[in-house]
Amino acid sequence: MLGKSRAKYIQSLGQKKVRDAEGMFIAEGPKIIDELLASAKSNLQEIYAVNSWIEEHHDECRGIQLTEITEAKLQNISQLTTANQVLAVVKKFETTADIKSKGKVSLVLDTIQDPGNLGTIIRISDWFNIEQIICSKECADMYNPKVVQSTMGSFVRVRLFYTDLLEWLQEQRGIRIYAAALEGRDITTMDKINEGLIIIGNESKGISPDIMKLANVQITIPRKGKAESLNAAAATAVILSHIT
Amino acid sequence: MLGKSRAKYIQSLGQKKVRDAEGMFIAEGPKIIDELLASAKSNLQEIYAVNSWIEEHHDECRGIQLTEITEAKLQNISQLTTANQVLAVVKKFETTADIKSKGKVSLVLDTIQDPGNLGTIIRISDWFNIEQIICSKECADMYNPKVVQSTMGSFVRVRLFYTDLLEWLQEQRGIRIYAAALEGRDITTMDKINEGLIIIGNESKGISPDIMKLANVQITIPRKGKAESLNAAAATAVILSHIT
Repeated sequence: MLGKSRAKYIQSLGQKKVRDAEGMFIAEGPKIIDELLASAKSNLQEIYAVNSWIEEHHDECRGIQLTEITEAKLQNISQLTTANQVLAVVKKFETTADIKSKGKVSLVLDTIQDPGNLGTIIRISDWFNIEQIICSKECADMYNPKVVQSTMGSFVRVRLFYTDLLEWLQEQRGIRIYAAALEGRDITTMDKINEGLIIIGNESKGISPDIMKLANVQITIPRKGKAESLNAAAATAVILSHIT
Repeated sequence: MLGKSRAKYIQSLGQKKVRDAEGMFIAEGPKIIDELLASAKSNLQEIYAVNSWIEEHHDECRGIQLTEITEAKLQNISQLTTANQVLAVVKKFETTADIKSKGKVSLVLDTIQDPGNLGTIIRISDWFNIEQIICSKECADMYNPKVVQSTMGSFVRVRLFYTDLLEWLQEQRGIRIYAAALEGRDITTMDKINEGLIIIGNESKGISPDIMKLANVQITIPRKGKAESLNAAAATAVILSHIT
């Protein structure tokens, strides 16, 4: 049974300030809930699902507060245009203050504001085995329902950190910083890297000048046609595919 | 002066059936209107813009019906959450029934349904100098405002054709058909191609089995991590970057 006040609470998790205050977020749909059950079960606080989903997943959900609801009630608490069988209230992941950048390739995002782009970049990172993403505080919130949705579940495997990017980058000694730009070294002829930071900039403004100054090398995807730029997520995928 | 009935007509172009009946679509924002003025001026039927935009573009718009309107009126006819200075009613581009696939690389889309994905794929094609995209009839409409918007103007340079894909592919003799799949030849070690058709499949179902049977070779982006799949637009960018 889902009471009115609980339904209101769940709906309110669509807002960042409520998510921040409560330390909770919403995840929806069988694919994403499956990923959470497999990799972050202890974060699952409450699951609301239709009968057919519960029949299939009853055993896996042992220990989690599981409530059967109607399609109509599910649609009522859903952030999706069309609700999809199951919705969970999930505890945010723990993040340490200490981000290690040695010995691996990490992605750095300077003001990626579109939730769909951020979610897609998390999914791309998961495909190319990038374990962590360092985000400027101006990036979209990783717990925004649209971000969670567009990661297709990859957000359980990729760690995100939000920090003052300029300050943090200045502290990274002895690690190479690559900045994606419209001009620079051709990524299709570069050697593969196994350590470094790759910065991707804002959808329309690119990387901010202060951050760009900290880069050791600007890298670019050769343009063969006439588009002025590539979408940030597509550019990330191409860069990771060529140099990692 | 923009009358009420004209405003209603412009709003109705948000619907596919009206666009099809009228042979018109909407384009918005300085970037996209600039591209149209530069490459497809004769398609521009009516432009509605705020004073500041008109002052800057008055000369280029000679011969086009140009109407100054307030921000509030522009927002009223806009398909965007926040209207952006200028909106145009544009005549659809002419397409011939005869699609030539010899001597070039073309993209083939099997049921790409998300307008944002289609728009991004058009922009990616423009970046990598792919001149034409053959779409199944189940693909999103290229004149959908969200598609037009996410191409960032690239739709003026890339030609799209909507056709019965199965039938059309069966007619393509002596041209190599590459199908993007989760398993297949590793694109990072393939030779570059300068002729062929590259098929990208639906966001969740991939390429339909009937279409897949017509492929000469399945190609794949090596997965290094754990994501189940890559976003269709990101995959398109990676494939085009490696093999063209």
